[in-house]
Amino acid sequence: MAMPNYFEEFEVGMTQKFGKYHVTREEILEFAGKYDRQPFHLSDEAAKATLFGSLCASGWHTCAMSMRMIVENMTGGAKGALGSPGIDELRWTKPVFPGDTLHVESTIIDKQESRSRPNMGTIFMHNKVFNQNDELVMSNKPMVMFRKRDPG
Amino acid sequence: MAMPNYFEEFEVGMTQKFGKYHVTREEILEFAGKYDRQPFHLSDEAAKATLFGSLCASGWHTCAMSMRMIVENMTGGAKGALGSPGIDELRWTKPVFPGDTLHVESTIIDKQESRSRPNMGTIFMHNKVFNQNDELVMSNKPMVMFRKRDPG
Repeated sequence: MAMPNYFEEFEVGMTQKFGKYHVTREEILEFAGKYDRQPFHLSDEAAKATLFGSLCASGWHTCAMSMRMIVENMTGGAKGALGSPGIDELRWTKPVFPGDTLHVESTIIDKQESRSRPNMGTIFMHNKVFNQNDELVMSNKPMVMFRKRDPG
Repeated sequence: MAMPNYFEEFEVGMTQKFGKYHVTREEILEFAGKYDRQPFHLSDEAAKATLFGSLCASGWHTCAMSMRMIVENMTGGAKGALGSPGIDELRWTKPVFPGDTLHVESTIIDKQESRSRPNMGTIFMHNKVFNQNDELVMSNKPMVMFRKRDPG
């Protein structure tokens, strides 16, 4: 089942599991080199001296990779999605290492009609990202605005 | 004043303003093409039909660009920073457009010694990202672990 496209189609309690993102060392280094030049994202040796133990992805990179899986899971070119005002409780619970394969589990936890805009509403999600050993590497609670299929 | 390097050097209430990140259309398209292929991040025409009005950066791209400014502001190669367990209240308050120039304002709102690890502690920040018109485009509250200079 793909992600619904319009506000009406989301049901609170609905859960989806999707995505398969293979994390490469090259991509970790490329992202970190551009946006997060902390030693433990750039060098095995520097990472060994930290809690991470070895080279791991920037947390923002994990967000970006997860977003890719989420958008790929939207049907019809994300027709109904209108962007997000924000995210609550973003947590990085385990490092993401080169060679990991990530997937997403997304649950709809609430939905609210817009008071000011009758043609849209906000969907509240709880997203969890796991690695190939089903260890939780990241979780967060995004709010996403969706168009109504039938604003009538 | 650059960002302190070690836990002891942070004082609650301390505020810093730093960074100058010029956002290009090419970089918006490159990031979105890879991680966030929603129409309003890829095409002016598609964006016109949305609340954004015109092509704008992925919110995750704004996070990444802000992280770059934050890491560049750390002195001594981010010696004391040990990564982040998470972020609260991430909000995207205005779209980021091609041609914008971003900067960061970061305030230390709390600090806590680690109970289990005497050589580190957690710094709680409130980060705000503004464009060239001093409009708030993003805010969030990260927790960041820092090494102690003198674990005593």
